[in-house]
Amino acid sequence: MGEQLRRHHATESPRLQLLHAEQVVPMSERPVQALRTRRQSSMRLALDLVRDGQADACVSGGNTGALMAMAKVVLRTLPGVERPALVATLPTLGGEPVYLLDLGANVACDSETLFQFAVMGSVLAECVGKRAQPRLALLNVGAEEIKGNDQVQQAAQLLQSTPQLNYRGFIEGDGIFTGAVDVIVCDGFVGNITLKASEGIARLLVQQLKQGIQGNILARMLGWMLKRRLSRFNRQMNPDQYNGASLLGLRGIVVKSHGHADEAAFLRAIEEAMVEVQRQVPRRIKDRLESVLLDKS
Amino acid sequence: MGEQLRRHHATESPRLQLLHAEQVVPMSERPVQALRTRRQSSMRLALDLVRDGQADACVSGGNTGALMAMAKVVLRTLPGVERPALVATLPTLGGEPVYLLDLGANVACDSETLFQFAVMGSVLAECVGKRAQPRLALLNVGAEEIKGNDQVQQAAQLLQSTPQLNYRGFIEGDGIFTGAVDVIVCDGFVGNITLKASEGIARLLVQQLKQGIQGNILARMLGWMLKRRLSRFNRQMNPDQYNGASLLGLRGIVVKSHGHADEAAFLRAIEEAMVEVQRQVPRRIKDRLESVLLDKS
Repeated sequence: MGEQLRRHHATESPRLQLLHAEQVVPMSERPVQALRTRRQSSMRLALDLVRDGQADACVSGGNTGALMAMAKVVLRTLPGVERPALVATLPTLGGEPVYLLDLGANVACDSETLFQFAVMGSVLAECVGKRAQPRLALLNVGAEEIKGNDQVQQAAQLLQSTPQLNYRGFIEGDGIFTGAVDVIVCDGFVGNITLKASEGIARLLVQQLKQGIQGNILARMLGWMLKRRLSRFNRQMNPDQYNGASLLGLRGIVVKSHGHADEAAFLRAIEEAMVEVQRQVPRRIKDRLESVLLDKS
Repeated sequence: MGEQLRRHHATESPRLQLLHAEQVVPMSERPVQALRTRRQSSMRLALDLVRDGQADACVSGGNTGALMAMAKVVLRTLPGVERPALVATLPTLGGEPVYLLDLGANVACDSETLFQFAVMGSVLAECVGKRAQPRLALLNVGAEEIKGNDQVQQAAQLLQSTPQLNYRGFIEGDGIFTGAVDVIVCDGFVGNITLKASEGIARLLVQQLKQGIQGNILARMLGWMLKRRLSRFNRQMNPDQYNGASLLGLRGIVVKSHGHADEAAFLRAIEEAMVEVQRQVPRRIKDRLESVLLDKS
């Protein structure tokens, strides 16, 4: 690491401070285990610095589960937030990316938690995504009011009775990528599987297209033309690699970058963290939740 | 309808019998409503014929919810089956399609129901998909044993203790399309959203590619070459349009075809029903469930 920094003349930078970390969190390690035994890992030390106000944000490319567990314990959730949520943007037909949460921080969520996710996602879309009154939807198996399981049914009732949120109702799986709304809320089980399935289908389509344009020289030239667009698309379909996935609902800013992110991708994660610092996202989420819950009580 | 049949000289066919149906089930009608008020619809009459042994199978392009509700009441589920499941095949990188269920018949499933889906899906993959000892997986947010919600955790335990099933463990969203397994089980909420999200992302990728290949003549030629593959791919990504989605677990055979299916697509749905009749799928599911549950008790 020090090696790398020297090579980029970063060690001379007055804005950069290098702290030594004794431990490493293995990618395969269980969150609980990492939480208990990796107090000297760079991940943990970074979160400690954020908690102590010596750093404004933590950007990590490490073990996602461990990062979420440590962040929750070290930084703690904001008042009114039961669980932090992992959020990222996905590309849409409309061009404007859509915010999808939760992407896997919580495998089971009750309606209250989904409601909190809706508030957090709306705040992020508003102050980072620059959307005025972000259009909000719940991911469901149908657009009709009667559709869905108990959690989404009850969450819908909570959202309908919250004028501060621009709730537009249910949206189906194919609606994620149309750009019809700015923020889509679901539990982490559905969100994680949906995101990964989308990555999988994109890979499948790319393979089938390549098969379709093999053979003659003309086809190969055309294949080359496709390549650039496809690689760009694959980056977009891999949000944490594309622009970082934020962990929302904490008393501090944490951005998860992909473990295999290249320089440009990691830079985007850092930039995301910077904007969230400038826009004071945690404070805004806290304020919005307070005003919303105040109206409800 | 009679008009159409005459035009195809079908009315003279001794193998074809035309029954008049007074009512129509509107696409927007609630299942309960249709169940109560559409006893003279072609959908209901067809199911009645299957129940009474006058028809071997029912193929419908109508209101899916209504079809599932009517089928469950008219045909009833097989012994050992709590709920019927909607199943279809999806394309994979390996080439061999994968069976995914449930695709939306049940928005909430306990571990017992997921276990029953696993048995039903395995039987279908075996006797219709011609897979010897179909490789079976549960859709989850991670491949590690500790991952997932209570339902999949408990379902995994049930499957691990069932030697008659070739259970391979958990599979993630992107694993659906790799061809690593033959049958993937999830609840209808996750299955429906995953399927529709995959359709949505395919449309998005197609749009981005088209944008990428506009302009010069070379590009337009590429666009033309892509077109055929893309349309084929889209058909595959729309299972009920591609080959019909089967409603499993009933005391009769019901295949759902897409409402906008063309002649070729509807023919595939009929062929799917024919094969299920020849292979006696309902009886095989009943027998397999009996032997599996017998071993458990």
